[in-house]
Amino acid sequence: MAHELTEPGGKVRLYVEASLGDDARVTPGEGQAHYLLHVMRAKAGDRVSLFNGRDGEWLARIEDVVKRSCALVCEKQTEKQTEVPDLWLVFAPIKKTPADYLTQKATELGVRALQPVFTRRTIVGRVNADRMRANAIEAAEQSGRLSVPEIREPVELSKLLAAWPRERQILFCDEAGEAPPIAEALAAAPAGPWAILTGPEGGFDPAERAAIRALPNVTPVSLGGRILRADTAALAALVVWQAVRGDWR
Amino acid sequence: MAHELTEPGGKVRLYVEASLGDDARVTPGEGQAHYLLHVMRAKAGDRVSLFNGRDGEWLARIEDVVKRSCALVCEKQTEKQTEVPDLWLVFAPIKKTPADYLTQKATELGVRALQPVFTRRTIVGRVNADRMRANAIEAAEQSGRLSVPEIREPVELSKLLAAWPRERQILFCDEAGEAPPIAEALAAAPAGPWAILTGPEGGFDPAERAAIRALPNVTPVSLGGRILRADTAALAALVVWQAVRGDWR
Repeated sequence: MAHELTEPGGKVRLYVEASLGDDARVTPGEGQAHYLLHVMRAKAGDRVSLFNGRDGEWLARIEDVVKRSCALVCEKQTEKQTEVPDLWLVFAPIKKTPADYLTQKATELGVRALQPVFTRRTIVGRVNADRMRANAIEAAEQSGRLSVPEIREPVELSKLLAAWPRERQILFCDEAGEAPPIAEALAAAPAGPWAILTGPEGGFDPAERAAIRALPNVTPVSLGGRILRADTAALAALVVWQAVRGDWR
Repeated sequence: MAHELTEPGGKVRLYVEASLGDDARVTPGEGQAHYLLHVMRAKAGDRVSLFNGRDGEWLARIEDVVKRSCALVCEKQTEKQTEVPDLWLVFAPIKKTPADYLTQKATELGVRALQPVFTRRTIVGRVNADRMRANAIEAAEQSGRLSVPEIREPVELSKLLAAWPRERQILFCDEAGEAPPIAEALAAAPAGPWAILTGPEGGFDPAERAAIRALPNVTPVSLGGRILRADTAALAALVVWQAVRGDWR
């Protein structure tokens, strides 16, 4: 019997790049087709949800099932397109496992873009953008988001700061300096697009800290007295931002 | 040359169970001795920091180095004992990797006790308390905490609620119901000891939700409109609690 496919976490949602609309036919990727036909054992007529970051969420019917492929035919829009708040996470690259985790969690927590940044004390010299993107897509599918965060090319901190868009506020997680508590500082900070900036294990060096604090729209904050790992600090800042200024209000 | 041992994340800190005081001699565990002598290549006269959850932090000198063991002799107290806020995390057990992660992060974020609780929709049937404790100790050593969170025996939700200490507030992460946003609800909530209560993937069932909400000191809260994984929700609640009511203020 035809039915809407579900996993333990909820309904099956797939991110696709194709346009979605009445009767639009979408060809799932190889991995998606494998997942639908062999993991979920979907049959022709079963329904899944699709989103592409532009056209909202659509219920689609599975058709043309052959051994390794199928088609997905849009039936009706179930949600209009919405966007997460305009928040970037700018972070120094970290090792593989925490990087996977950070990408997944940041996606669930509703970040719009992930921007890796190389700092003087950054130890990890390479960013696996494909892996980040795969983690972000999976997390977006499971979190009910209608978009996947943008994964930006890594840049050097000095270049990033030199080209910083003036209207975008920076929440600077400054573990080394005197800074007000994050909830208080955020409640009093200006409106507008934001970015959270967190450093590597070991923090920013003094010249970097001075350069960041010299920008016009910087709110330095403290995350308490304990030492947080780089990925914990980034997630904590995202959480407080969403709770105090974002779409959790 | 004698020196204080450091890792990339900061100074080497070891959690021990023995009492610490002037000239107290501590025998490190087998794993700790291996770490000091073979990983860190410590020599007699090198210094490490010790804490035990009761006596503050002490600088200790490595002595009596033989192949697989050494002694640690307390020289001076470098920090007086302090405690994290009186906050418990009560959570439905989750799979191994997220459980490791949650234990580490909750420790960094300054939770006093971790209480696994079985609910009707909990899928994971077993809690590895030794593994949780090892993760908590490692995270406490690296976060600068002077204590390790208590790892409680798992209990059934109904038993936990029946014996709930009346003076302890519950922050109830209620994904299914109407609840006010977390930052707002916490800012207006009573003082006192607290516990955060989070459910399994799939949430609490309706009867469980009703039983929780029937307790006297419950603050139900919402964590926004996206679906958070169970470990993400627990960490997010901890973060907002620390930022709004805890020791990040």
